[in-house]
Amino acid sequence: MYDHVHTEKLVDQWLIEDVGNGDLTANLIIDAAASTTFDVNAREDMVVAGIEVMATVFRRYVPGVSIDIRVQDGARVAKGTVLARVSGQARGLLTAERTALNILQRLSGIATETARFVAAIAGTKAQMIDTRKTTPGLRALEKHAVLCGGARNHRLGLDSGVMLKDNHIAVCGGISQAVARAKAAVPILAKVEVECDRLDQVREALEAGADVIMLDNMSLADMRSAVAFIDGRVPLEASGGVRYETIRGIAETGVDFISSSKITQSAPAVDIGLDEAV
Amino acid sequence: MYDHVHTEKLVDQWLIEDVGNGDLTANLIIDAAASTTFDVNAREDMVVAGIEVMATVFRRYVPGVSIDIRVQDGARVAKGTVLARVSGQARGLLTAERTALNILQRLSGIATETARFVAAIAGTKAQMIDTRKTTPGLRALEKHAVLCGGARNHRLGLDSGVMLKDNHIAVCGGISQAVARAKAAVPILAKVEVECDRLDQVREALEAGADVIMLDNMSLADMRSAVAFIDGRVPLEASGGVRYETIRGIAETGVDFISSSKITQSAPAVDIGLDEAV
Amino acid sequence: MYDHVHTEKLVDQWLIEDVGNGDLTANLIIDAAASTTFDVNAREDMVVAGIEVMATVFRRYVPGVSIDIRVQDGARVAKGTVLARVSGQARGLLTAERTALNILQRLSGIATETARFVAAIAGTKAQMIDTRKTTPGLRALEKHAVLCGGARNHRLGLDSGVMLKDNHIAVCGGISQAVARAKAAVPILAKVEVECDRLDQVREALEAGADVIMLDNMSLADMRSAVAFIDGRVPLEASGGVRYETIRGIAETGVDFISSSKITQSAPAVDIGLDEAV
Amino acid sequence: MYDHVHTEKLVDQWLIEDVGNGDLTANLIIDAAASTTFDVNAREDMVVAGIEVMATVFRRYVPGVSIDIRVQDGARVAKGTVLARVSGQARGLLTAERTALNILQRLSGIATETARFVAAIAGTKAQMIDTRKTTPGLRALEKHAVLCGGARNHRLGLDSGVMLKDNHIAVCGGISQAVARAKAAVPILAKVEVECDRLDQVREALEAGADVIMLDNMSLADMRSAVAFIDGRVPLEASGGVRYETIRGIAETGVDFISSSKITQSAPAVDIGLDEAV
Amino acid sequence: MYDHVHTEKLVDQWLIEDVGNGDLTANLIIDAAASTTFDVNAREDMVVAGIEVMATVFRRYVPGVSIDIRVQDGARVAKGTVLARVSGQARGLLTAERTALNILQRLSGIATETARFVAAIAGTKAQMIDTRKTTPGLRALEKHAVLCGGARNHRLGLDSGVMLKDNHIAVCGGISQAVARAKAAVPILAKVEVECDRLDQVREALEAGADVIMLDNMSLADMRSAVAFIDGRVPLEASGGVRYETIRGIAETGVDFISSSKITQSAPAVDIGLDEAV
Amino acid sequence: MYDHVHTEKLVDQWLIEDVGNGDLTANLIIDAAASTTFDVNAREDMVVAGIEVMATVFRRYVPGVSIDIRVQDGARVAKGTVLARVSGQARGLLTAERTALNILQRLSGIATETARFVAAIAGTKAQMIDTRKTTPGLRALEKHAVLCGGARNHRLGLDSGVMLKDNHIAVCGGISQAVARAKAAVPILAKVEVECDRLDQVREALEAGADVIMLDNMSLADMRSAVAFIDGRVPLEASGGVRYETIRGIAETGVDFISSSKITQSAPAVDIGLDEAV
Repeated sequence: MYDHVHTEKLVDQWLIEDVGNGDLTANLIIDAAASTTFDVNAREDMVVAGIEVMATVFRRYVPGVSIDIRVQDGARVAKGTVLARVSGQARGLLTAERTALNILQRLSGIATETARFVAAIAGTKAQMIDTRKTTPGLRALEKHAVLCGGARNHRLGLDSGVMLKDNHIAVCGGISQAVARAKAAVPILAKVEVECDRLDQVREALEAGADVIMLDNMSLADMRSAVAFIDGRVPLEASGGVRYETIRGIAETGVDFISSSKITQSAPAVDIGLDEAV
Repeated sequence: MYDHVHTEKLVDQWLIEDVGNGDLTANLIIDAAASTTFDVNAREDMVVAGIEVMATVFRRYVPGVSIDIRVQDGARVAKGTVLARVSGQARGLLTAERTALNILQRLSGIATETARFVAAIAGTKAQMIDTRKTTPGLRALEKHAVLCGGARNHRLGLDSGVMLKDNHIAVCGGISQAVARAKAAVPILAKVEVECDRLDQVREALEAGADVIMLDNMSLADMRSAVAFIDGRVPLEASGGVRYETIRGIAETGVDFISSSKITQSAPAVDIGLDEAV
Repeated sequence: MYDHVHTEKLVDQWLIEDVGNGDLTANLIIDAAASTTFDVNAREDMVVAGIEVMATVFRRYVPGVSIDIRVQDGARVAKGTVLARVSGQARGLLTAERTALNILQRLSGIATETARFVAAIAGTKAQMIDTRKTTPGLRALEKHAVLCGGARNHRLGLDSGVMLKDNHIAVCGGISQAVARAKAAVPILAKVEVECDRLDQVREALEAGADVIMLDNMSLADMRSAVAFIDGRVPLEASGGVRYETIRGIAETGVDFISSSKITQSAPAVDIGLDEAV
Repeated sequence: MYDHVHTEKLVDQWLIEDVGNGDLTANLIIDAAASTTFDVNAREDMVVAGIEVMATVFRRYVPGVSIDIRVQDGARVAKGTVLARVSGQARGLLTAERTALNILQRLSGIATETARFVAAIAGTKAQMIDTRKTTPGLRALEKHAVLCGGARNHRLGLDSGVMLKDNHIAVCGGISQAVARAKAAVPILAKVEVECDRLDQVREALEAGADVIMLDNMSLADMRSAVAFIDGRVPLEASGGVRYETIRGIAETGVDFISSSKITQSAPAVDIGLDEAV
Repeated sequence: MYDHVHTEKLVDQWLIEDVGNGDLTANLIIDAAASTTFDVNAREDMVVAGIEVMATVFRRYVPGVSIDIRVQDGARVAKGTVLARVSGQARGLLTAERTALNILQRLSGIATETARFVAAIAGTKAQMIDTRKTTPGLRALEKHAVLCGGARNHRLGLDSGVMLKDNHIAVCGGISQAVARAKAAVPILAKVEVECDRLDQVREALEAGADVIMLDNMSLADMRSAVAFIDGRVPLEASGGVRYETIRGIAETGVDFISSSKITQSAPAVDIGLDEAV
Repeated sequence: MYDHVHTEKLVDQWLIEDVGNGDLTANLIIDAAASTTFDVNAREDMVVAGIEVMATVFRRYVPGVSIDIRVQDGARVAKGTVLARVSGQARGLLTAERTALNILQRLSGIATETARFVAAIAGTKAQMIDTRKTTPGLRALEKHAVLCGGARNHRLGLDSGVMLKDNHIAVCGGISQAVARAKAAVPILAKVEVECDRLDQVREALEAGADVIMLDNMSLADMRSAVAFIDGRVPLEASGGVRYETIRGIAETGVDFISSSKITQSAPAVDIGLDEAV
């Protein structure tokens, strides 16, 4: 779920960033005619994301490269799994290696962390969703990694959905007015969500016609009350300070969605390496 | 230590990524004439990095914005510190908020994690350095954040220094040949480093004239032997699987530099928020 | 409702397109020090759209230009109205003139044509909406012009809403399966619309949980049946071959939205000129 | 008559504009492995322009697509004609469809409208020409469409020909001085044209050495006088308020060229669709 | 005679090229708060070109810089002349210095070499013109430098004038056919030039209606014959192997224009330096 | 030693610069279906640089072109040598010809001039090196051409090596302080060079730990004294006003490197042409 034409442009930008005026080492040491084969190895258990992006890095930099992709995005693999095998000009492969791995490690890191959160709420009705707290320049790719990890996307950007927060509501004179104004003018395929801190706001948002209601930093008790009050009429999203340790409790309140920035902003990279194929 | 002309272009790219065809919420709800003032608040203890980049985000998106920067990059601040105060058109500030915070949180996260590693080796002669394992598109900014955290940079890209690894050396017929080839042709202001797995390689690298020698995944005992053997003739870098838990032991072997990808690739974002100024 | 950072980049691209290697006429004939004042005049009745974009063209090309904008986007003005007054370097103003007028004429043409369609259905409950049939490169600006003309936007791009058409449905094995698949995975702030050619499809779409239903090329009788059947449970969009002559009849069937490509793809430019201010 | 390297960059920009962060519908519903074949169908009589540009859209977005182009630009085709057949990955074809059609419909609309104007002056010596009143971003492509419609280009941009208008002449102190200044310094392969409102200006322009003379908003009687006076010594261009209804009368005055913005700025799109091939 | 919006983009590209990930020296050594004043000094006699481009380099890189331009493009200055004085942040000025000087030295080098050629034919009717043999990426700026040196431009690019060479003519079946084909379809403000190697071709080109005729690598005797034959009916351009030593002889044959690649492709840079202002 | 992904983007930019809105001549005169074969001929003795860049120009512009490269970069060839043979669509080849030759002529001109300087110091221990005085936009390619000519690179940009000049040193309070500051913070693979005007500065630089010392505009006698004093402890670079006539004398002082801007900034283009293959 990302645009490959745009992604190709990002890949070129990344390569230019790392290669700069030329790879001093590979150009001086590796013969232009030498070719080789490398395996892309998972060095820990992980959920894979970005395998096609990694391939694009090699394809853009190494003319004639051959890439045998062994696992698809979303696959859960064990340490030691060969994710792909790449063959071609040794010099180009060594130059592109770090860029290819950097993006694959980051996206797979997000997918893996997402899957951990998703597993934590398995069996409840709650679905894990993401936020707009992504790395600048990698929005679509990181949202894609979230999908690979088994969660869903909230909205892709400021232009694809309305989220009414405190300060939006304050300047409008209240939830009712803000929702009315948004619903009257928003693109007809976009939904309107309202952020609520208190239960009376939840009631007001529902009556105003909100399509989705966010329970922001509420106690578990308040969340349960909100779930009971809403009773399935609109989806409820729990948000604010969600951590791995607390997420199951939140899910068990009966909310529909739980969002956290942890799965994108703070996911550690997973370990993936390039090894001479044997 | 980054190019602000290039950074301005990145900032525009990030804003376009998030805003897309327009911020549905702010445009529909917030009056174009309304203005406001926000504080950028540190919500945990941290080392700051990217404060000028954050300011550039607001300056590019909000014509006439006024920004009062309260702390400089590299500052160590406590939870609750106001990092900056921004005043201007409310609609524009709300649209740019997330992009501004996303980059500041990521860079300050790196600076904070770096400072943690640096503190762990305080009092030894070892200096913390970074790697090329950075987020694609953010190389210069993340390397800058590493400096803010008190560590040093290894090299900025493939064009600014030679690093001879296993496969480079293998195709050349040995360390001596590879170093000779590199030193004969490299730009005269660039150094040549050799990656060594064993002590006999360290000896060969030294004799070949390597400017820096990397001890890759060596035991502490081997590192100590290498330090004793080299005896200050060239700097030694320890690398490979370095973690917060193990770094002090490595530093105490007497190496000059210790590199780790953890400080860039796996640094969690720190918590920074925008609050109505009081 | 468009991103002004992105728009500034478009403006530069347009200027470079027209100016190329330099304006032979202005550079050879007009003294660099000469300054002048022009009025931007409406030469026919129109609804204005793009007045800020026009100003951006002059601001990007003529350093120090002063622009007095007299009407806002969405204003309905009579022939002879001065839309803006621009003062500054004569050479730069003459070079930028055509680009500034070209975009203002096109966007105002769309707003004006849109307003004509909107007026045709005044008093009914139907709202005019647009399509993705816009000029390549001008999507956000043309959608903005549609808003200026009093209509609403359908969706801004392929990433902000789901529209299930014939061939999507065919490959999925039916409306129910397609809607289920979409609703399970779509970003939670995006709606799902289904295109229906027949009344039995309308029933199926409703039961599957479609958020919006499009009546594609249906007869007025069928539309009336659909309206009666749906009875307000979800919004209905009439689409397909809508023309100015037929739109009121369609609106009177009771549908909620009517979409037409005519207001974007086939709106004639309105006449706007630059005249020496008196 | 356009640069395909530049066009490829425009095509990418258009695709990124529509696809944004990903085509929600196609990605969720259409299997990545499914392939299909579509016909690009003319749904009304038209003159075709942009068939290669349309093909470029599909080629850039759908790797491995096969395109069988059935008619060349400039062809006059009847409703129902298959313009091209495209085969390949169903998902990619559906995502790229609208961008491909949008540009083909617009360019063919211009070619068709141009051909209508050209037909209106058939049998006279006058040739139809265009203006710089084109859509920002589409200059070269729209000028190409004008050629497809059987007319000629005036100039491609401000850097390829001199056009002395009222205000240029005013600041120079008269037609003679302006023409002299231009002819002394212009690139030697560029011509100098003078805009004249009155017959005495025509005489002055001729004597000053103008290469082409424009009769701006003159009466038919004045045009006839100008034609008689010039007697073939330089070409004459009639311009200003030219409409389909009035163009034949203008042509019959004996002028060499007639320019109108109608053929570019106000040409309605023609109807072209993508249908499952049978 | 160049587009300053496009030039600003080139300037950014040049700065990013030199600065890369940051100016190691200035950033480490020069305090961010330090300011200074430099003079831009001509270190030899020269004709100046590019003074505004140089200023743009400093303006883009050094916020708040103040630039006092002392001479205009086209000025002939003696060694020791201060061309401009720049004041501002020392760090930024030192970083931008080389890029600013590199472009000023190159453009002034072209203007100076051009002036030398122009002086060599002073008193004859011939005018010096340039070719398309310019540095890739600097076309408009180098053509501007040629104007500063007192010569004229031939054509700015492939889209602004027709030049029929041997192989164009060969595939068309002769000069007459090629000229006819070109004149029937070329934009009406563009001229058609024909390259002739022999006198019989000159006659054919004239009869075919060529606007300009190029005498390619002809002997002085043949040029004189061509001049006599043409007798002012169309301008004649001498071209091919023109050198400083031979140009006066060519000019004295009576041709109208003489073109040479020497003034752009082989002009040595002039010496210009930045010195602490006293 | 340049990045081919970045180079491809430069090539596109150059082609768009020359072709603009389309090649009037080739498009009007040459049949789209015609194909041809050209030889790229060296019209004087030269050292070749840029043969792959030239090929990239043709590959980007002429789909399906076939290029037989006959000599590699760095080859010393005699007048009359066929450097490459290109076959393909005649129209595209003629359009791309000038851009392809312009870059090949410039880079080979630099390589040839460099080789001339290198030959002048043959037999001494000195190596020729370049400077940052390159054409804006062509840094990496011109540095590559210098390598082809047999010289070495100094540093590629401001981010890959420290060069302490007068004004850097002045603001720091002396050479010792400046070197200390730089060495403490520079990326560990970058060297620090100090510019010295006098022998006492050479001593101070050595003691401060400079990695390389530049002798700036010193007399031959002073250079000899510096060489004797340093005695191989660090490399010495002679710089400032180096000309072909004086370089051998400088080399014979015993310095390690000699830098000159002449080989990049003032190298005349060599003569290379495209001829119909026989």
